[in-house]
Amino acid sequence: MSSPILPRIHGPRDLKGLDAAQRATLVEELRGRICEVVSNQGGHFGANMGVVELTVALHTVFDSPRDRIVFDTSHQCYPHKLLTGRGEAFETLRTYGGLSGFCHKGESEHDTAFAGHAGTAVSIGLGIARAKHAQGSDEHTIAVVGDASLQSGMTLEALNHSGWLDEARYLVVFNDNGMSIDYPTGGLHATLQELRPWASAPELSGGEDAAAIEARKAAERGTSAARVEQFFTHLGLDYVGPIDGHDVEALIAACTELKERTGPVLLHIHTRKGQGWAPALVDPVAWHAAKNFYPPAPAPAQPKAAAQPKAKSWTDVFSEAMLALGAEDPQVTAITAAMPGGTGLKAFSERHPERFYDVGICEQHGAGFASGLAFAGLRPVLTVYSTFLQRCYDQVLHDVCLQQNPVVIAMDRAGLVGADGVTHQGLFDIAYLRCIPDIVLMAPSDEAELHAMLRWALESGQVVGLRWPRADAPPSLCATPDPIELGKGQIVANGDGRVALMAYGAMVEVALEARELLAAEGISVTVANARFAKPVDRTLLRSLLESHEVVHTLEDHTVVGGFGSACLEATLHEAPRLASKLRLAGVPDAFVHHGARELQLRDAGIDAEGIAERVRESLPRPSERWHLTAYLS
Amino acid sequence: MSSPILPRIHGPRDLKGLDAAQRATLVEELRGRICEVVSNQGGHFGANMGVVELTVALHTVFDSPRDRIVFDTSHQCYPHKLLTGRGEAFETLRTYGGLSGFCHKGESEHDTAFAGHAGTAVSIGLGIARAKHAQGSDEHTIAVVGDASLQSGMTLEALNHSGWLDEARYLVVFNDNGMSIDYPTGGLHATLQELRPWASAPELSGGEDAAAIEARKAAERGTSAARVEQFFTHLGLDYVGPIDGHDVEALIAACTELKERTGPVLLHIHTRKGQGWAPALVDPVAWHAAKNFYPPAPAPAQPKAAAQPKAKSWTDVFSEAMLALGAEDPQVTAITAAMPGGTGLKAFSERHPERFYDVGICEQHGAGFASGLAFAGLRPVLTVYSTFLQRCYDQVLHDVCLQQNPVVIAMDRAGLVGADGVTHQGLFDIAYLRCIPDIVLMAPSDEAELHAMLRWALESGQVVGLRWPRADAPPSLCATPDPIELGKGQIVANGDGRVALMAYGAMVEVALEARELLAAEGISVTVANARFAKPVDRTLLRSLLESHEVVHTLEDHTVVGGFGSACLEATLHEAPRLASKLRLAGVPDAFVHHGARELQLRDAGIDAEGIAERVRESLPRPSERWHLTAYLS
Repeated sequence: MSSPILPRIHGPRDLKGLDAAQRATLVEELRGRICEVVSNQGGHFGANMGVVELTVALHTVFDSPRDRIVFDTSHQCYPHKLLTGRGEAFETLRTYGGLSGFCHKGESEHDTAFAGHAGTAVSIGLGIARAKHAQGSDEHTIAVVGDASLQSGMTLEALNHSGWLDEARYLVVFNDNGMSIDYPTGGLHATLQELRPWASAPELSGGEDAAAIEARKAAERGTSAARVEQFFTHLGLDYVGPIDGHDVEALIAACTELKERTGPVLLHIHTRKGQGWAPALVDPVAWHAAKNFYPPAPAPAQPKAAAQPKAKSWTDVFSEAMLALGAEDPQVTAITAAMPGGTGLKAFSERHPERFYDVGICEQHGAGFASGLAFAGLRPVLTVYSTFLQRCYDQVLHDVCLQQNPVVIAMDRAGLVGADGVTHQGLFDIAYLRCIPDIVLMAPSDEAELHAMLRWALESGQVVGLRWPRADAPPSLCATPDPIELGKGQIVANGDGRVALMAYGAMVEVALEARELLAAEGISVTVANARFAKPVDRTLLRSLLESHEVVHTLEDHTVVGGFGSACLEATLHEAPRLASKLRLAGVPDAFVHHGARELQLRDAGIDAEGIAERVRESLPRPSERWHLTAYLS
Repeated sequence: MSSPILPRIHGPRDLKGLDAAQRATLVEELRGRICEVVSNQGGHFGANMGVVELTVALHTVFDSPRDRIVFDTSHQCYPHKLLTGRGEAFETLRTYGGLSGFCHKGESEHDTAFAGHAGTAVSIGLGIARAKHAQGSDEHTIAVVGDASLQSGMTLEALNHSGWLDEARYLVVFNDNGMSIDYPTGGLHATLQELRPWASAPELSGGEDAAAIEARKAAERGTSAARVEQFFTHLGLDYVGPIDGHDVEALIAACTELKERTGPVLLHIHTRKGQGWAPALVDPVAWHAAKNFYPPAPAPAQPKAAAQPKAKSWTDVFSEAMLALGAEDPQVTAITAAMPGGTGLKAFSERHPERFYDVGICEQHGAGFASGLAFAGLRPVLTVYSTFLQRCYDQVLHDVCLQQNPVVIAMDRAGLVGADGVTHQGLFDIAYLRCIPDIVLMAPSDEAELHAMLRWALESGQVVGLRWPRADAPPSLCATPDPIELGKGQIVANGDGRVALMAYGAMVEVALEARELLAAEGISVTVANARFAKPVDRTLLRSLLESHEVVHTLEDHTVVGGFGSACLEATLHEAPRLASKLRLAGVPDAFVHHGARELQLRDAGIDAEGIAERVRESLPRPSERWHLTAYLS
């Protein structure tokens, strides 16, 4: 048995001298390492297992970073990381201070672009390729894009433009694995499906013998191949393929040949998500991301006592609320952009398939589609991660709010998102939404409130945005919650009149934790649940400002233009003299990288200890207190 | 000669009894009326002249508003307005209080959706069609989309989804006129071009006789037709066409037949922009919009004195600045999304065609593409109307700012836009951009400053957003402008220490006008040019607050989360006790409809008189003055 190859690979140049047998070994080693580390750390599994051969081939044929590889979405970058000098660090994957689970420009010169949103690579790649062409460079640019991203508007726009520019050294590798995170949708998917070798065999027609079936299958495959080729050639691209994406030597041969072409060309390859790990081929949705599966865990010990009830995530709570409200009202309709599982809509989709739409990675269309559903009288809930709602900002403004078509926008992963890191942070939605006229923005503080708010939103006849983080939801924070009323918050704990915390959404729980910490020090803070970021409860805010010496606003969102800023504007309008008593606590104005959500909250100074410290610092000194009291009396 | 038809049409039902001859007359009358009113009022010309027959056919076959027609972009809605009860009001087109130049839900039950951004109709239409299907309705939905909008990502996403849903009564009319506002681009355009009857005839091959040429042309056309059909069938849509969009009887026959189908179907029609007005066919770009052309104007009188120099628009100034900077630096590259004329890039595109990219109505791709150009060392200037930048919000955040790829974002039509109205207002860009980390936001106050700022932005190595309105640019407002420095503003006029105006961009001129008005009343206000909205000049702001009793921020933008809010946040951080002295002047939190920009500024209270009135109202009364002085001493 030959010695391991992977430990000798410190960069792409170490691949150049390998022979086919060594590459075959390397492919196995890469898969083994991905299994080990993903099992330990958690992370994207299926997509990475699928592109091992492709990544070896690209780094064999091309010369990164001179030649530029741009990975779309980049959740398939693990083999790339392992081949570009990050083999040892790989075990720190997705941890605070460790390697990112996505391409990260700060990590390596081989990572061309941050990528976490789907559909960006063909555009960025084309820009690089055209710039190199303009500079007279002979360097190559390669974009790697999957079939789920192909359907996103940005990719289709970019392919259409690529087909119009015929000079750049630009290779688009179309990695067709027939999967999104979940099962894909869309007319184009159906066209591509005809050609996928693992797709179900054509049905037998009566009287055909084996040879006839084989001949018919070949003919059908030929027709399908022509159909798929035409789709790309109609956009103006040269097309090559499809070829087997798990045949590393075939990939090397194809890339070597295509390297000589100067116009944009699309290479269509077929891969399987989870290749090399049999269970993943059977259930690719479950194996999109994975943890704790290798080596097989020992059988769990017998439980010693009654199991603790598992905490519910906000996503779980939303999932239940949608089921409950969907059962009550047959107009309730759910829309997701390729995230039925992640957003919690799976149960709704199974219970009410006729009222569920997965539009694919097409947030723009999803928002416009939801607007149309609302116009015609349904009650659509557009369910999107906060970070991906950015993709349909114009549609929320122009096609939903301006139209006054009452769409409920349910934002999951709003706030600091943990290990997914910088490309996935949901830190901007309050700022970019609250400038839109006629929108209502709210956030639940606990499980019961999510139910109540979703019901209120569906009944309001208005465009309403709701947000919650990727975290567990507290079952109940308030013994006697007020009914939901537009622009009304609620005090959930009274204090000693020195400091109040005006908290939004999930920050109410953090505020109450900070209150506990401070109580031990003899400081009793008031905690208010703001409930609404638009319209802000001015009456509550004014009352807090009048009856306290300092009021901190708390949000799991950038402090620039967010909930705190909304409170500040309201105060300037309502009671300008009191504005100086406000303090805004939120995420500082910088991109936030990956790590556990608790650490991200800590670093932002908005975990319970951070809030407590802000309160301590803001306690008026005796002299200041006198001054303020005198001034306000 | 028969009596006029058009005056007898008060709604779609009045079309039902017409015969073919009457329809032919009606078509002529509609074109005549459009010529008259557009010539008087100004407005979109070519697209409206092109869809006269289509609109007559749709309202003849379908039953609006029971059946729903959704116009994409809706600058082609004039015939629709004339046929749906707005014939008399039509002469008020695009005026304050008059008819909108686009579909407007408040105007008529026949206007299904506001539309001013391209690419939205197929999504909204599909939503309506699916909702009607879910409700068991037999009503129809029709989306009308042009070939320029076809290439936008949102349309392609929506077509792909339409092809996946096969039950709705949904007709997509693909109105292929081979034009964008300007000449179109993109691989798909080239494919479609093969089939357009007015496209250049195939070249002769030696030795062919007339019959052979005819046969070859027919064969080529057949191949092209199949190619175009396949593009749509690959997306899963049924396809019918192409048919002549100026044959009203053929359109009626086709629509009548398609009305019986239940699955989504795309009807491909060929029309000409400006049909019926010969000069428009020759120069469709110039005739996209028009004014003062019919009846022919009398020859102009001899000029009595030397002609006044025409005022330069901000767009003109940007155009000159791009030429100047492009001549200096061969890395400067311009990108537009189908607006070479409107954004002022025409001259640059002619001078430097190799450094100019029109990506089509594809802002998303345009931003990603610009990011790639910047990554590879060029200096891209992404030039977009403020309202359309919303379409690539996620790309600005995820693909430009996060990447630290230094793209300069030049926003034209930022602020109140006048007659284009509610769908085109550039009132949100400061709010949605300033929450993004690492972006720099600035706005010039005069012609010289635009040049200086654009130069500074290109040299800064940062992502910089610049904005200016659809208005004339003052040549020079400041005798001795300071050099541009990050986050530094400048006082342009000193006052008596009571009130200061901290104005952003084009509002500096308005502030100086207000200063003039107030000077006559013995009030001397200080005027500062803020220059930057991010980072705000905290030192200047603090200094103004300390030395004045009231400071008004002025912006041509919503007051929610905008420049004033940035100043307020900065003050809370820098000098909280002074926050109560701030007043935020901007556009109130509501959608703003069409009318002259001057009237829109007046209504928002931010024209010179409105600002002067704000100053008068904010002048401290003697008692208050004493109080403030005592407090601050």
